[in-house]
Amino acid sequence: MWKRFARSILVLLPALALSQPPTADTLVSPEVRPDRTVAFRIRAPKAVDVAFFGDWMPVGSQEKMTKDAEGVWSVTLGPLDPSIYLYTFTVDGVTIADPVNPRIKLRSRTSASMVEVPAGPPALWQERDVPHGAVEINWEKSKALNGETRSIWIYTPPGYEKDSNRRYPVLYLFHGSNDTAAGWTMAGNANFIVDNLLAENKALPMIVVMPYGHAVAFGAPREKQAKNTALFEDYLLNDVMPLVESKYRVAAGRQNRAIAGLSMGGGQSIAIGFSHQDLFSAVGAFSAAVPADFETRFAGFLSDPKSTNARLKLIWIGCGRQDPLFPRSQKFAEELEAHHIHRTFRASEGAHTYTVWRQYLGEFVPLLFR
Amino acid sequence: MWKRFARSILVLLPALALSQPPTADTLVSPEVRPDRTVAFRIRAPKAVDVAFFGDWMPVGSQEKMTKDAEGVWSVTLGPLDPSIYLYTFTVDGVTIADPVNPRIKLRSRTSASMVEVPAGPPALWQERDVPHGAVEINWEKSKALNGETRSIWIYTPPGYEKDSNRRYPVLYLFHGSNDTAAGWTMAGNANFIVDNLLAENKALPMIVVMPYGHAVAFGAPREKQAKNTALFEDYLLNDVMPLVESKYRVAAGRQNRAIAGLSMGGGQSIAIGFSHQDLFSAVGAFSAAVPADFETRFAGFLSDPKSTNARLKLIWIGCGRQDPLFPRSQKFAEELEAHHIHRTFRASEGAHTYTVWRQYLGEFVPLLFR
Repeated sequence: MWKRFARSILVLLPALALSQPPTADTLVSPEVRPDRTVAFRIRAPKAVDVAFFGDWMPVGSQEKMTKDAEGVWSVTLGPLDPSIYLYTFTVDGVTIADPVNPRIKLRSRTSASMVEVPAGPPALWQERDVPHGAVEINWEKSKALNGETRSIWIYTPPGYEKDSNRRYPVLYLFHGSNDTAAGWTMAGNANFIVDNLLAENKALPMIVVMPYGHAVAFGAPREKQAKNTALFEDYLLNDVMPLVESKYRVAAGRQNRAIAGLSMGGGQSIAIGFSHQDLFSAVGAFSAAVPADFETRFAGFLSDPKSTNARLKLIWIGCGRQDPLFPRSQKFAEELEAHHIHRTFRASEGAHTYTVWRQYLGEFVPLLFR
Repeated sequence: MWKRFARSILVLLPALALSQPPTADTLVSPEVRPDRTVAFRIRAPKAVDVAFFGDWMPVGSQEKMTKDAEGVWSVTLGPLDPSIYLYTFTVDGVTIADPVNPRIKLRSRTSASMVEVPAGPPALWQERDVPHGAVEINWEKSKALNGETRSIWIYTPPGYEKDSNRRYPVLYLFHGSNDTAAGWTMAGNANFIVDNLLAENKALPMIVVMPYGHAVAFGAPREKQAKNTALFEDYLLNDVMPLVESKYRVAAGRQNRAIAGLSMGGGQSIAIGFSHQDLFSAVGAFSAAVPADFETRFAGFLSDPKSTNARLKLIWIGCGRQDPLFPRSQKFAEELEAHHIHRTFRASEGAHTYTVWRQYLGEFVPLLFR
């Protein structure tokens, strides 16, 4: 009798864990096929219109989905190039993550789903059978941000714990607008990219510090947002860096510090990197929101290329040609060149997505701390 | 001209980051008010029926939501006792997380949203102004699981990095069915609970190891699921524990190891803890899926209370009276008592939710390694 009761409880468990009514729904979405086509599905029998958006598609476009007799809407797309893509469904006007896919892209507001189309053999951004570093989530009360507690995600390379005397250079790596401190790990695979480069002896072991880039709350009015970079700089210098320098075994000096980011984080890297050449020796700007006042603000550095080149050993600018920010990156690269400031400009195919940013990280990291 | 272009790009950024059409939607959901009532909202102008479920409500029940002239459906509930709750919307039959709330409960399948109703002064499970430990995500290729790479979330207490000679006892802490390795951190606040207990000098500094509990894929057929605990035991003993013992500064011996979990993880803790009294000295079973064959399987230990009591110094069983698993926990506690095995049975108010499990963790941790 007890056994029968226990068995019935075990059957109930998934429903309890779901905290919603029991369901036998075994709908599969997304389904990634060997030919790299992907089927996306959502059960919505009462919906009138369901559409799909994936981040490899032009911003604002949608793919129609069609309904079967069971009320399941589906669309099969591709073949897609190997990558991790973000996607959403729009069900009668409501844009949502895929209800059954557990792989969620965390954001500051709203959420989306992720689908991984693996390469064979595994690409640089994929988890390979190599020694893995770890990513440590730190929580710290911020003095710069009125005592708010923020999380900072910090990658340490494989073997970090083994030699308590060894010190490591540090890459400060920033996400874009509406992303979170988890973004470079959970969508950017920064940890696997550095793991794989280390395993191929293409990069130096380093610590990667990934803080939360919205010092002003995402979604706040535009006049407040305008102060985000300045406040983030304050947070980075007075909260994040002291935590990193006191807790982790970091190598001292500007030659052991790099600053890089994507989109909004690229803009932050340029602004903070150029302002603090005493602290950083490398700047990476991936699809960057280049500061609009760059030319006037940093006129002093632009007019003294000898000193700037001596301090900022690496300025790496990358942008996809299909990214609306491309002209701005191009213009920024031209400005630097016109002032005889050394920089690398990587114009690639691609839009404003992590597909591009994972690739850039894989190209940028090997150049650091040389 | 460049400035105007740059400004227009900055306005576009949120849309780019969202990878979906620009929206001026500033809908607030959830809105937690000072009186602890909470308003939940979703913009779904074309929907015919929208309902709400929160995990403080009876499983299977729903609250109706009502639509305003703007097409926003809302319901205001509470006042709610301070806690972190899980909730979902069901829009014309499709159950989804809150589309605008970024605080997502990650699961093995499907997702839900979380809302925090804070206590004043902050409760034990809340982030307080105390020294914080960190949670490190480790990725490890598992020998037991056919080479699959799994993540293991590991809490180290504040100051762990400061004394490279100090060793710590370890709590192995397991989640429930359809949860993930992130669950005890992101929904259970295990890190803040231990931080706060340490700050009050109510617990001993310890490492908390949180692996992924689905050794057999969640959603696999029932006959495969039946092997989950055995396979998880294999994974724990041959992959997780060797990683922990080689990478972290852990104190040796069974007196420095505890094993505990909730629901499915409580069942795993009982099964593995009783089988490996050479490895563990404390077992915690929170709302546990007690193994159905416990009495026959562990007849040897039950018939030798003197030895069992000498080895398992602490057996802590807790369950909420409104939890369908309550009778099974009660029966388990009675079985142990009938065999003169020492145990604590904590019958509390509450159902099968993290509200109960956070409370249990706060009561269990202070008893460990004494």
